[in-house]
Formats: sequence, C-alpha cells, structure tokens
Amino acid sequence: MDGKPMLMIPGPTPVPEQVLLAMAKHPIGHRSGDFSKVIAEITENLKWLHQTQNDVLCLTVSGTGAMEAGIINFLSPGDRVLVGDNGKFGERWGLISKAFGLNVDLIKTEWGKPLDPEEFRAKLEADKDKQIKAVIITHSETSTGVLNDLETINKYVKAHGEALIIVDAVTSMGALNIPIDEWGLDVVGSGSQKGYMIPPGLGFVSVSKKAWKAYETATLPKFYLDLGKYKKATDKDSSPFTPPVNLMYGLQVALQMMKAEGLENIFARHQRNTAATRAAMKALNLPLFAPDTHASTAITAVIPTTVDAEKIRSTIKKKFDIALAGGQDHLKGKIFRIGHLGFVSERDILAAIGALETTLQELGYEGATPGAGVAAAAAVLAQS
Amino acid sequence: MDGKPMLMIPGPTPVPEQVLLAMAKHPIGHRSGDFSKVIAEITENLKWLHQTQNDVLCLTVSGTGAMEAGIINFLSPGDRVLVGDNGKFGERWGLISKAFGLNVDLIKTEWGKPLDPEEFRAKLEADKDKQIKAVIITHSETSTGVLNDLETINKYVKAHGEALIIVDAVTSMGALNIPIDEWGLDVVGSGSQKGYMIPPGLGFVSVSKKAWKAYETATLPKFYLDLGKYKKATDKDSSPFTPPVNLMYGLQVALQMMKAEGLENIFARHQRNTAATRAAMKALNLPLFAPDTHASTAITAVIPTTVDAEKIRSTIKKKFDIALAGGQDHLKGKIFRIGHLGFVSERDILAAIGALETTLQELGYEGATPGAGVAAAAAVLAQS
Repeated sequence: MDGKPMLMIPGPTPVPEQVLLAMAKHPIGHRSGDFSKVIAEITENLKWLHQTQNDVLCLTVSGTGAMEAGIINFLSPGDRVLVGDNGKFGERWGLISKAFGLNVDLIKTEWGKPLDPEEFRAKLEADKDKQIKAVIITHSETSTGVLNDLETINKYVKAHGEALIIVDAVTSMGALNIPIDEWGLDVVGSGSQKGYMIPPGLGFVSVSKKAWKAYETATLPKFYLDLGKYKKATDKDSSPFTPPVNLMYGLQVALQMMKAEGLENIFARHQRNTAATRAAMKALNLPLFAPDTHASTAITAVIPTTVDAEKIRSTIKKKFDIALAGGQDHLKGKIFRIGHLGFVSERDILAAIGALETTLQELGYEGATPGAGVAAAAAVLAQS
Repeated sequence: MDGKPMLMIPGPTPVPEQVLLAMAKHPIGHRSGDFSKVIAEITENLKWLHQTQNDVLCLTVSGTGAMEAGIINFLSPGDRVLVGDNGKFGERWGLISKAFGLNVDLIKTEWGKPLDPEEFRAKLEADKDKQIKAVIITHSETSTGVLNDLETINKYVKAHGEALIIVDAVTSMGALNIPIDEWGLDVVGSGSQKGYMIPPGLGFVSVSKKAWKAYETATLPKFYLDLGKYKKATDKDSSPFTPPVNLMYGLQVALQMMKAEGLENIFARHQRNTAATRAAMKALNLPLFAPDTHASTAITAVIPTTVDAEKIRSTIKKKFDIALAGGQDHLKGKIFRIGHLGFVSERDILAAIGALETTLQELGYEGATPGAGVAAAAAVLAQS
C-alpha cells in the first residue's frame, strides 16, 4: 500500500504528529513579545538537553552550517588543528578547516573503525609549545555507524590545556549521553532533523567560556555565522537574523516531549533499539560494519556479503515503503544503514527487522533461519 | 478577540493555508527519487519567478545568509566594491563586505531617501583601470520603504563592464518586476518569508554566467555558503547539504499558487495595494517616509508627527491584533511600517487602514476627517 512511508535513515528522522501540527501554525513576528517567550523556553530546554550552562545557540542552517560556525568562530588563519577523520563527516570537517586556511593535521582511520585516542594523545603530548588550537572530532560518524571515544580523546585535550575540543554531535545529541559540563566540551554542534525529532533547517552550537575567550582573538572572517551575534541576541531572547519561526514552533513542542520522556529514558530507548538491531543482524548473519565496542546509537551499518545492499534497499522500499540509507562514497552499494535515531519506538525496530527478513527471503538469501532476526531483537527487548 | 492575528510586517508575511498544510506533511528522505522531483519542480519555478535562465540556488539560511553567499562567492580579499547604503540593509551589506576584508566604498544617502544613481555613475566612470569588482545594491530598502533605482544604477554597472551587480531583492522579489535576464543582473539574493509567501528559513541566490566566471578566481573562504556546491547539486536535482524538506514542500505549493496568479497580476496587486496604502496615509495627513517616485511595493513607512508611532503600533496590536513594524536603529519610535508584501489581498489593506483610523481616533488624533483614509484607499481600489 501507498501513503504510509517509514523513515529509517539517519535524517530526516521520524517527526511526531504534534510537531508537524505545531509547524503548520501561522507564523508570528519574530520580534514580538510572544515570540521572545518561545525563544526563551527553547533556549532553556536546549540547555537541559545539552546538560550545560554554556550558551546553546540556534542557527538557520543544516548540521554542516552549525559545524562550520563551531570551527570558524574560534580560530585564525594558520592555526593548527587536529581533525579526526574516519568517515564522511570527519573528512568534511577537515575540508572546511582547509577551506578556511587552517593548518590541518588529519588523524585518519579506515572507515568503519574508531579513531584511536592514543594517536591524539601522542600528538597533543608532543605539542610542548601549545600550537594545537583545536581538536575536531565527529562523535557518532553517520557514514559508518561508528561511535568515536569522545570521552577519552577529550581527556587528552584537557591535559593539553590550550586546545579547544570541537565536537560534531549531529547524530549523537539526544541519542546518547553527552554531559557537556561534566566533560568540559567547548563547542558542540548538532542539527534538527536528528535526535531533535523535527525536520531539517535548524542547527545548534553550544559554546563554553573557554571557547568565547578564543572567539575574542579569532580572526577568520564571519558574519552570518558569527556566533557572537547569536549570543548577544539569545541573551535578550531574540535572534540576530530572522529565525525559521515554524521550525522553532516544532522545536518547542519536540523539546517539551523530550523533557516529558526524560534524558535517561531517551538514552535507554536508543541503547535498547541499537542492541536489538545489532542482535538481529548477527542472528541473520549479516556482518555489522562498526564494532560492538564503538556502536553508534543513531545508526547501524550493515555490510552484507552474499546479498546486494542496494537490492535490499530497493526491495524493502518497494514492498514495505521503508527508507534505509545506503553507503556514501566508496561504500556506495556495499553497505546499508538502518537509522534508529530520534522518534523511533521499539515497535518500529521490530517492524523494520521483520520487513528486512521478508526482503531477504524474497531475494533468496539462505544465510539464516527465517525468524531468527526478529527473535533476537525480541529477546533484547523482552529483557529491557 | 484573540486567535486571529494579522501580519502587516515586512516578514514573516502572511502564509496561505495550503502552504501551512503542505509544511505539516511528514518529511521524506532528501536523497530519494521522490524528493528529487520536488527539487526539480521548485528549481524550474524559481527560474520562472526570477525571469531568468541563470541558476537559482536554494540555501538553508535567512535573507542575510543568502546575501552573504551572493557577496563572498565572487570576490577576493581587498577587492574594491561599491555598496549603496541608505538604510539598515544597505548598511549590513557594507558590514559583511568589511568583515570579509573587501575594500568597501560606501555610497551613502540619508535613510528615507533613494540612492543617487549619478554617484554610482561618477565612481564607475572614474574607474578607468577597472578596479571595482562589484556594485552591491539593496533594491527595496525594508527599513525605510525606499525603492532604489536598480535599473538605472545597473545601466552604469553594465557600461563599466567589469563589475558585477549584486542585488538584495529580499523584499522586492515577487513584489515587483525584476527582469533578471533582460537587465543582466548578475547576483540576486532573496528570502522565503517575503514575496514567496512561506515562513522564514530558505534563502535564494540567482547567479549569472559572468558571476560564475568571477567565482572561478574568487578566493574568499567558504564552504557551507559555497555556491559552486549548490550549483553542482542543483544540476542533479539534489542539494549539497540536507535541505529543510518541509519548507521546500511549502515553497513547492507557494510557487504553484504564484504561477496560477501570474507574474503580471502579482505585480499589479502589489502596486494597487501600495497605491491604496499611500493614498490613505496622505488623506489621513500622515507623512510618508519614502517619496512617491521611490516607493517600495513591499512596505510603506509612515512618520507621524503629532501622534506617537509606538502608541499606534501597540494600540492597533491590542485592539485589532494587527502587527505593524516599528522603526529600526535611529528611527525606533519615530516611524511605523505597514507591510503589504506577499499573500496580502486588497481586503487586508482596507481592514488595516480601517483599523488604523480607529486607532488614531482612540489616540485622540484630530489631523484628518474620520473615514478619509479608507475612502482614499477605496478610490484607488475601485479604479483598478
């Protein structure tokens, strides 16, 4: 049947009906007192979600725009930065850094493997005259489903003392615990169409006091992405440029829903759905692309060996109207990725695995006992 | 009564119900074939609206972001640019140009007065060794309601031969005739919450072949706002970064509505509403801030002398739930601005003028015969 599509990609993610309806309200003036109240509520709840007293700023951009703002506001041309690159997005932050004339030291790891914190430690410890101004890390690498060990890498950054830690939390914010204040994360970027449960169009950047100090002397050119302007306006419950009023309405409702569910419950749900998905893939003898020790709770990448990844995607789309993501760049056609980020229930996971099993049968896959995937997922979900 | 607000500000502007409902549809994957079709349709209709065969690119930004992209993609540090500055937005494009290290030559005029094309002519003619790389002009200056004489200034730019013309059409696109190909406008920026009849969150930039040639050698740093990436993706009915899917749904419907109304009719409606509004203000003896010869069809600014502008705004808001705009910067408290841009009907104009008359009576204004404003507007509307 048509008209009942299901998004299991890493963004846009499913959007609750309450959010969609909030977005359909007629906009009001963004300089009105009524809208100031909306901004004030959103700002407070964003800080709650980010577990921080730092500023959390709201920009009309995609996740890439948020990350670019997070990089260019705190650095000057020629500044040395370490950039972790083990996937499409780590690679992108390296490209942005180069485009803005930073002295980029890429710490590369094969796609599908986690960044090695020891490589960061070695570089940071060797930097006796404190030339490294920032370490840029992708937390959950969406292209591979790998979760990098942010906590450990950040410890080495803290030991260095000078460098800022700049984090791409685009697909991890709202999907797993990122205690910004406890860990002392300086700059954390994220995007709306992910754990936030709203459509794309808003980016978020949290900024620490230490980062604001770096901002004062940073000379990379900026205007639309100048976070100082956003801070100044946000402090007055306003915005420097016209904000996307209707997306903000949606965000307001989504954050209320997240508060009602509670951070612990949200994180536990993502863990549960991830564990169920991974257990199912193992029971179906479909190899997982990221190791268990570094599994993103946003997305699970699968690298099937005896059945074509693109055939799986096209068949499950046609038969069940489920959108799965494919591989990017050299992984195109080799992997498929199951998004379980944001407004995804345990029931959705069972439906997707059931549909995947049916798809595999239709494609003549004989690598597993029929029903094994759903059974494995059910075992995880029954226990938790 | 509550719950029936009316927007008469220069953005956000009123949004049709069909657009609001389209935005409440569940998003689909932005890399899907179905969404490619949406992008293809939007791209074609944007070219129709812009009266051009040039590329028209769609960015997730506010109008300021679109203009920043329109400036930084075609220039290099130290390039000399002429920037027309006769209001808040002209001033802003000067600030952006300075922030990016351009050699800025401001051509300033008092707020409320139009830019003098002769000043541009003189500077351009004197530039024998063609050092002026761009002329940046605000077409409809939202802060004052002044319409600058783009056609004449552009003729001088064309006579110069080297300089690009970069146009802020944020509140003029869709409100009056801007024949991009006929006039040879190189770069034209605009924003969604204006003539487009959709909420804020999308910016548009049209780019000529000549501008693309300048792009090839331009060295200002860019990534998120790199228009080359947008062109490459748009040529494949795609987007370089995740687009705001739901706003694009809204845009799709709004452009269909605009095509159904027709460009000539849209422009005539804006002219009619502007003429009716201005006639009413004159009949009410409320001085207009912009001269008749240079009146924006997006917004009418009024500078009342014997009654307080902010009192008018707060009273009409409270009594009739009509949002009028105030003055910006040094005009704060001195003027009020009536937006008549986008999805504004003749009936809306009569309602707003009737409400303004009632407000003036309530505030004890005795400068005009009661009913004179509506009568003057009616006379204009009856004729056309």
